[in-house]
Amino acid sequence: MDNLLEGIEPVLLMGPGPSCVYPTVFNALAKPTIGHLDPYFIKIMDGIKARLQHLLKTDNRLTIPVSGTGSAGMESAFVNMVEPGNEVLIISNGVFGMRMQDVAARLGAVVDTLEFPWGTPVSVKAVQAKLAAREYRLVAVVHAETSTGVCNPVREIGALVKETPALYLVDGVTSLGGMEIALDDWGIDVFYSGTQKCVSCPPGLAPLSLSEAAAAKLTGRKTKVPNWYLDLTMIANYWEGKTRAYHHTAPINMLYGLYQALGMILEEGAEAVFQRHRQTHRALVAGLERLGLAMLVEAPFRLPMLNSVKVPDGVDEAAVRAALLNDHRIEIGAGLGPLAGKIWRIGLMGHTARSENVEKLLVALESVLQG
Amino acid sequence: MDNLLEGIEPVLLMGPGPSCVYPTVFNALAKPTIGHLDPYFIKIMDGIKARLQHLLKTDNRLTIPVSGTGSAGMESAFVNMVEPGNEVLIISNGVFGMRMQDVAARLGAVVDTLEFPWGTPVSVKAVQAKLAAREYRLVAVVHAETSTGVCNPVREIGALVKETPALYLVDGVTSLGGMEIALDDWGIDVFYSGTQKCVSCPPGLAPLSLSEAAAAKLTGRKTKVPNWYLDLTMIANYWEGKTRAYHHTAPINMLYGLYQALGMILEEGAEAVFQRHRQTHRALVAGLERLGLAMLVEAPFRLPMLNSVKVPDGVDEAAVRAALLNDHRIEIGAGLGPLAGKIWRIGLMGHTARSENVEKLLVALESVLQG
Repeated sequence: MDNLLEGIEPVLLMGPGPSCVYPTVFNALAKPTIGHLDPYFIKIMDGIKARLQHLLKTDNRLTIPVSGTGSAGMESAFVNMVEPGNEVLIISNGVFGMRMQDVAARLGAVVDTLEFPWGTPVSVKAVQAKLAAREYRLVAVVHAETSTGVCNPVREIGALVKETPALYLVDGVTSLGGMEIALDDWGIDVFYSGTQKCVSCPPGLAPLSLSEAAAAKLTGRKTKVPNWYLDLTMIANYWEGKTRAYHHTAPINMLYGLYQALGMILEEGAEAVFQRHRQTHRALVAGLERLGLAMLVEAPFRLPMLNSVKVPDGVDEAAVRAALLNDHRIEIGAGLGPLAGKIWRIGLMGHTARSENVEKLLVALESVLQG
Repeated sequence: MDNLLEGIEPVLLMGPGPSCVYPTVFNALAKPTIGHLDPYFIKIMDGIKARLQHLLKTDNRLTIPVSGTGSAGMESAFVNMVEPGNEVLIISNGVFGMRMQDVAARLGAVVDTLEFPWGTPVSVKAVQAKLAAREYRLVAVVHAETSTGVCNPVREIGALVKETPALYLVDGVTSLGGMEIALDDWGIDVFYSGTQKCVSCPPGLAPLSLSEAAAAKLTGRKTKVPNWYLDLTMIANYWEGKTRAYHHTAPINMLYGLYQALGMILEEGAEAVFQRHRQTHRALVAGLERLGLAMLVEAPFRLPMLNSVKVPDGVDEAAVRAALLNDHRIEIGAGLGPLAGKIWRIGLMGHTARSENVEKLLVALESVLQG
């Protein structure tokens, strides 16, 4: 029988995710499957929780990986925190802010939005004015907006939300593992991420953490969570209850991979990993500018792990990406929504964030552009 | 740093799932991650779809793996097919029938149930009477009830549902890959399964298939699917649309594993695999009876892949399972709900269904019982 897997050729993954996976994570994925109720597996679950708490700088009891991709983390955060009629403020400046609006509205939230042009950061002053004008149950923002490469001031927004009765929700899909996140210090109540960005594990899991205030909202709900699969009141029993009661079968081998990937970050040292992201980012930007290319986002607001580059006039952006993939085995990403056709998105996420990868891309891109 | 993964010792997985994984599937999981929009990955997606269609005996266009475990398949089936107020009949004789009631009710369905004692099959006559008395939008039943080891007559029920306007939903989490399923012939409109039972891939994906009638219900919805992550109207664009529009990042390496596991079944031949399940089941039952043990389910209604054995009076069932795991590295399952403490559940699923495994278990069980 035909086996397409034999034809997979490695790609240098420099798009918006998935990123290059640590080789030891592939080994972890291939470890023997054991039972999801096996006492040894429970130990590994506890290990994942401890590693996540460390990386997120939190003591949150409910710190677990949701059994789905980063978008399942978003779904899980909203479906557990929102009840019909709850007033929710979504601060939005890209695709993932928009996605949060859609997710929350489907769940019956009364969604108010505060929008900023794509490619620019959230204005803290505007948030302050918005919060002064109305009371919300939940305020949500994306930390690292993958669609534009903008870093939002989640710490400063957190200080404002703390002065209100609202819970504070942060999407850390692209930031986790690539830059500092401090849930407890920054007053973040609800946090979720993915594994395929700066954690450098394949996609399939969504680390999630709830503060005590968020956990209280969960247990105090008037209505059942309208999603059995993602109901954290039941999932919590499996991840931290005394009985470890079965809810759904955990994605065992993916969890091995996450455990290993988090171990790689903590072994190198989180701050060293973040610095590696910043250094490769600076080298990439300098190299792109030498090639005559311009960045979409102004310097102070740029993410290290997601670099949006303007497509020069007259250049067929899709042809450039295809040539990079086919002739150089390098993947970079396209623009989304209003930025489709106008930017490339170059990822320096996790294991991808190495100076030799920056070099390879710059050489290949120069050759393709001169093509 | 401590690495718990190094201490994982293989276990012979003879519980209700996960089952033993084909060694080539572990290799597949460890293949290099490529992009979820990479044309080569799209080919692999098409390959998975074709293999699933073959195994499910269906031409359904919308035949895809959902990015979550089997329970996400259940959630996905109901959340896409049910709108608030829809009348749904759930036929139930175990944990997974009960779970369907909970899932559907949370979504606003008007749930009617037809229940049968745990350990006995669904009565086709009773279903006929129920369907004659009232009209439903959806009728749902579990094919292989993992909590009891009962096989339900899904083909016969399908013939009855066909005479009504209802869509017919079948949970095939434990049956897929271990016994015949013929979606088109049997009139099944909505089907989902998992990967960690008879497909012998680790948990993490949920194969799902919708008939044309189910797809029409989906596109004709009056309300948005109240679950962004599992919204099949959008996921379909990624799996089969012309543009292959990004929805969420697919769990790439898990999909490699599923592709490979399906290949193993089709290479051996589905009918040969089913026969291997029946043969090992007969050998197991004969061996258990030689040990003086009795089966929960009467012979005509037994599943080959999930064998419920009564715990003899005076035996500490948990101690037996612990001894099997600790001293023999064999996992079997406990009873759930009203059957907790009363039965063991012995799985012969997929790669586990080998006569040498039956032998190992019988020898170990005899030794433990003689203590």
